[in-house]
Amino acid sequence: MADPRFFRAAGPYSVSEIASLTGATLGGEGDGSLVLKGVAPLDGATTDDLSFLSNRRYIEQFGASRAGAVFVVPALAKHAPAGMTLLLTPNPYLAYAVAAGAFYPETVLPPVVASSAFVDESAVLGENVAIAHHAVIESGVVIGAGSRIGANSLIGAGVVIGKDCRIGANVTISHCLMGDRVTAFPGARIGQDGFGFAPNPPLYVRIPQLGRVIIGDDVEIGANTTIDRGAGPDTIIGTGTMIDNLVQIAHNVQLGRGCIIVAQSGIAGSSKLGDFVTVGGNAAISGHLTVGDGARVAGGSGVMRDIPARATVGGLPSVSLVQWLRQTAILDRLAKRKEK
Amino acid sequence: MADPRFFRAAGPYSVSEIASLTGATLGGEGDGSLVLKGVAPLDGATTDDLSFLSNRRYIEQFGASRAGAVFVVPALAKHAPAGMTLLLTPNPYLAYAVAAGAFYPETVLPPVVASSAFVDESAVLGENVAIAHHAVIESGVVIGAGSRIGANSLIGAGVVIGKDCRIGANVTISHCLMGDRVTAFPGARIGQDGFGFAPNPPLYVRIPQLGRVIIGDDVEIGANTTIDRGAGPDTIIGTGTMIDNLVQIAHNVQLGRGCIIVAQSGIAGSSKLGDFVTVGGNAAISGHLTVGDGARVAGGSGVMRDIPARATVGGLPSVSLVQWLRQTAILDRLAKRKEK
Amino acid sequence: MADPRFFRAAGPYSVSEIASLTGATLGGEGDGSLVLKGVAPLDGATTDDLSFLSNRRYIEQFGASRAGAVFVVPALAKHAPAGMTLLLTPNPYLAYAVAAGAFYPETVLPPVVASSAFVDESAVLGENVAIAHHAVIESGVVIGAGSRIGANSLIGAGVVIGKDCRIGANVTISHCLMGDRVTAFPGARIGQDGFGFAPNPPLYVRIPQLGRVIIGDDVEIGANTTIDRGAGPDTIIGTGTMIDNLVQIAHNVQLGRGCIIVAQSGIAGSSKLGDFVTVGGNAAISGHLTVGDGARVAGGSGVMRDIPARATVGGLPSVSLVQWLRQTAILDRLAKRKEK
Repeated sequence: MADPRFFRAAGPYSVSEIASLTGATLGGEGDGSLVLKGVAPLDGATTDDLSFLSNRRYIEQFGASRAGAVFVVPALAKHAPAGMTLLLTPNPYLAYAVAAGAFYPETVLPPVVASSAFVDESAVLGENVAIAHHAVIESGVVIGAGSRIGANSLIGAGVVIGKDCRIGANVTISHCLMGDRVTAFPGARIGQDGFGFAPNPPLYVRIPQLGRVIIGDDVEIGANTTIDRGAGPDTIIGTGTMIDNLVQIAHNVQLGRGCIIVAQSGIAGSSKLGDFVTVGGNAAISGHLTVGDGARVAGGSGVMRDIPARATVGGLPSVSLVQWLRQTAILDRLAKRKEK
Repeated sequence: MADPRFFRAAGPYSVSEIASLTGATLGGEGDGSLVLKGVAPLDGATTDDLSFLSNRRYIEQFGASRAGAVFVVPALAKHAPAGMTLLLTPNPYLAYAVAAGAFYPETVLPPVVASSAFVDESAVLGENVAIAHHAVIESGVVIGAGSRIGANSLIGAGVVIGKDCRIGANVTISHCLMGDRVTAFPGARIGQDGFGFAPNPPLYVRIPQLGRVIIGDDVEIGANTTIDRGAGPDTIIGTGTMIDNLVQIAHNVQLGRGCIIVAQSGIAGSSKLGDFVTVGGNAAISGHLTVGDGARVAGGSGVMRDIPARATVGGLPSVSLVQWLRQTAILDRLAKRKEK
Repeated sequence: MADPRFFRAAGPYSVSEIASLTGATLGGEGDGSLVLKGVAPLDGATTDDLSFLSNRRYIEQFGASRAGAVFVVPALAKHAPAGMTLLLTPNPYLAYAVAAGAFYPETVLPPVVASSAFVDESAVLGENVAIAHHAVIESGVVIGAGSRIGANSLIGAGVVIGKDCRIGANVTISHCLMGDRVTAFPGARIGQDGFGFAPNPPLYVRIPQLGRVIIGDDVEIGANTTIDRGAGPDTIIGTGTMIDNLVQIAHNVQLGRGCIIVAQSGIAGSSKLGDFVTVGGNAAISGHLTVGDGARVAGGSGVMRDIPARATVGGLPSVSLVQWLRQTAILDRLAKRKEK
C-alpha cells in the first residue's frame, strides 16, 4: 500500500473491474471477485495488493510474492505461486500504469492563486489555473486552463504555457512557448541564454541569444535539467519526449517526438535528434550532429559523429554497439594475455 | 584566519587546550602555552594559526609554513620547519576538523519563523525550528526540534524531517521521511517522480510513482543533487552517507550506510549499494545492479555489472581496477608502437 | 526576426551603419543603403534580416539564404547567392555579436526593489540596484551600482557583489566576493560547503569549510552550476572565465582568466587551471592537479594527471590528443580484424 501521508487511495476495485479497465484477461487460480485495495511491488505486496512482473530479473520475487493479483505476460504465468490470481496481458507495465493511476489518482489541488504569489496584471490565466505561494508570473504571460505553477517558481515575461501543464516548485522559465500537458519537475531551468560568445582578445563578447524554447505537448522535463534557448534558431523539444534529471540541452538543439533522454546526459549546441531517439544516462552528444530516427546511444557514450536512423552506438568516442562490444572484448583479452 | 564577514571566531585557544580537545600529543619545538587565534592552510598560515598536513603532496608547503602549530602524523614530523609546534596524531584531518569546529562554531540563527514564510496550520514544528523567508511548509509536515529550513524552499505535504536538520535555500522536498542531523544543500531536489513510463504507441504512459524517499541520520545531500522517490518500493539513503553536488539518485535505489558519492555521479533505477561504497566523480552505475559493501568505483567509470564486496573497478564499461590499468597500459603501448 | 514577445527591436539600421559599427567592409552585390530590421539565422532570414556565416558546415545554407546582408570572411564570399549584400570581416561571429546587440539591446528593467523582497537593513545597495520579487538579501550584503538580483534568489550574509552584475532567478550565493559584470544564470549555487569530511568510525566528521568563493570580473556562471567555497584556501574563478550549465567546481579549485568550461564538466578539489584553459562537455578533472595555460581537454575525458601548458588531451584516462586518436584507431582496427 502506498503511504497515505503522500498518496490518496481511491478503490477498492475487484479483479474484474481491473481486467476491464486494462484489457487484461483473468488467469491463474484466482477469481474475478477478489477485491484489491492498492498496488505494491512484488516483494512487499499483501493479499490486498495488485502487482506486476515486467522484468525477468524479478521472476524469483514473483514466485515468492503474496500479492493478491499480478499482471504478467502469458509466457511467464507458469512461475506464479499457487493460489495467485493472474491478469494476463502482453504489456504488464502499461496495464500496471493504468491500474495504479486508478488506485491513486493524482491529487488535484484547488485552483487557487496564492495571495503571496506575484501575478503581473497583464498576465492571462485560463480557467482553473493554480499558482502556488511566492511564484512570480511576469508581464504578458499566458497560462492555459488547468495548469499549475509551483511554489517559488518564475515564469518570465511573454512565456506561453498550454493547458493542464504541471510546473513544479523552484522552476525558472523564460523565452518559451510550451504545449499542453507538459511537466517540468522542480529546479528545471528553461529558456536562459545559450553558451555562446566570440573571442574578442583578451577576453570574449557574448552573442545575444535571440531564439526561444519551443516545447510540444506531453513532454516531461526532469528535476534540475537545463534547456537553453536558441541563439537565433529555436531550441525545440518534440511532442511526447521524456527528459530525465540533470540533463543539459544546449541552444538550437532539436529533439524529435517521443525521445527518451536519460539522466545527466547532454546534447551540445545545434545537434538534431530525430523521433524516438534514446540517449542513455551520462552520455554526451557533440554539437552540430544529426542523429536519425530511432537511434540509441548507450549510457556513458561520447558521440562525435552523426548516427544513422535505428543505429545503436556506444563507447568514447562512440562506434556501433557491435563494434564497441568487440573493442571491449579484445582489449580485455589483450590485457589478460599481458598478465602471463 | 577565516574571513570575519562569513565566519565568527571563537577562541583563542592554547596549544594545550587544542591537544586536550583532539587527543593529539605535543611535539616539535614548540610549547603548549602558545596561543592560537584561528586555523589556516599551510601556505597562508601565520604564527597565530593552527594548520594540518594530511596529504603527502603538501610536504613542501609544510616545510615552508609559518603556521604556529600543525597537526601531523609522527612519521612526517621530521619535515617540519625549525621552531614549529607540532600536534602529533594518527589522523591529522580528523583532529583538524574538531579544532576548526571549535575555532569557528557554526552560526546558529535565532529559531524564528519568518513572517513571509507560509506554514500550513496543520504542520507540526518542534522546538527551536527556524523557517527562513518565503519558505513554504505544506499540510501535515512534521519538522523536528532544532531543524532549520532555508529561504525559498518548499517542504511538500506530509514530509517528515527529523531533529537538527539543515535544509538549505531553494530546496524542494516531497514524499520524504528524513532522519536527524541531515543536511540538504541549496537546490537539492528530493522526492519528485522517478523516470518511469510504459510504451503506449505512439507515445508513453507515465507510471505512477508511489514510493517515498527514506533518508537515515547524518546524511548530506549536495547542491543541485536530485533524489527521485521510489516507483513502489522506496528510494533509501542509509545513515551517514555523504552525497556531493549534482548527483542523480534514481527511483528505488538503495544506498547503505556511510557511502561516499562524489559529484556528478549517477545511480540508475533499482540498483542497490551496500555499506561504505565509494563512487568517484562523474561515474555512472546502471540500473538493477548490486554493489557489495566497501566496493569502490573509480571516477568516470560506467558500471554495467554487479560489483562484489570490497572490489575496486574502473573504466567504461568498468572492469577490476587492476584489469583497467592493464587495458590502459597495453592500449597505450600498442598506439605508440603504431607510430613507428 | 526575433520574437517581439521576448526581444525588443531597436533599429532599423542601414548596411553602412552596421559596417561602421562592426568595422566590416561592404562586399558582394548589395549596397550600403539597404535597410535591415533585424537578425536571423541563414536559413530563416528574409531580405530585411542580417545574418552571418562562421562555420563551414553552413556554406550550403549560406548559398541558399535569402538574408539581406551577411557577415562572412572574404575567402568564403564566393559561395554567396546572387544579389546578396556581404559584410566582409575576419571575424563574422564577433561582428554578428556586436550587430545583434545593437538590434536587440538587453531590456533593462527599472531599478526597483520589490516590496515582496526581504532586504536586511544592514545591506548596502548601490545606485540603480534592482531586487526582484521574493529575493532575500541578508545582513551585511553589499551590492554594487546597476546590479540586478532575480526573483526568489538568496544572497547570504556578508556577500559582496560588484557593479552591473546580473544574478538570475532562484540563485543561491553565500561566502562570496564577486567582481563586476558577473552573470549567474538561474539555479546557480555559489558558496556552499565543499565536500570534505574525515573518517571517524563508524562514520565521518565534517571538515568546517572556512574559505570563500572569489569571482573576478566578466565571469559567467551557467544555470544549475555549483561552485563550492574553499575549505581554508579560497575557490577562485578568474576574470572573463565562462562556465556553462551543470558544471561542478569543487572547493579550493582555482580557474585562471578566460577559461571556457563546457556543460556538465567537473573539476575536483584543489585543482588549479591556468589562463585560457578549455574543458569540453562532460569532462572531469581529478583533484590536486595542475593544468597549464591554454591547455584543452576534450569532451568526455577523465583527466588524472597534470596537463602541460597548451597541451590537448582526451580519453579516459586522458592522454595527449594525438595518442588518444591513435589508441582509438588501433583499437578499432583490432576489433575489426577479430571479426574475420
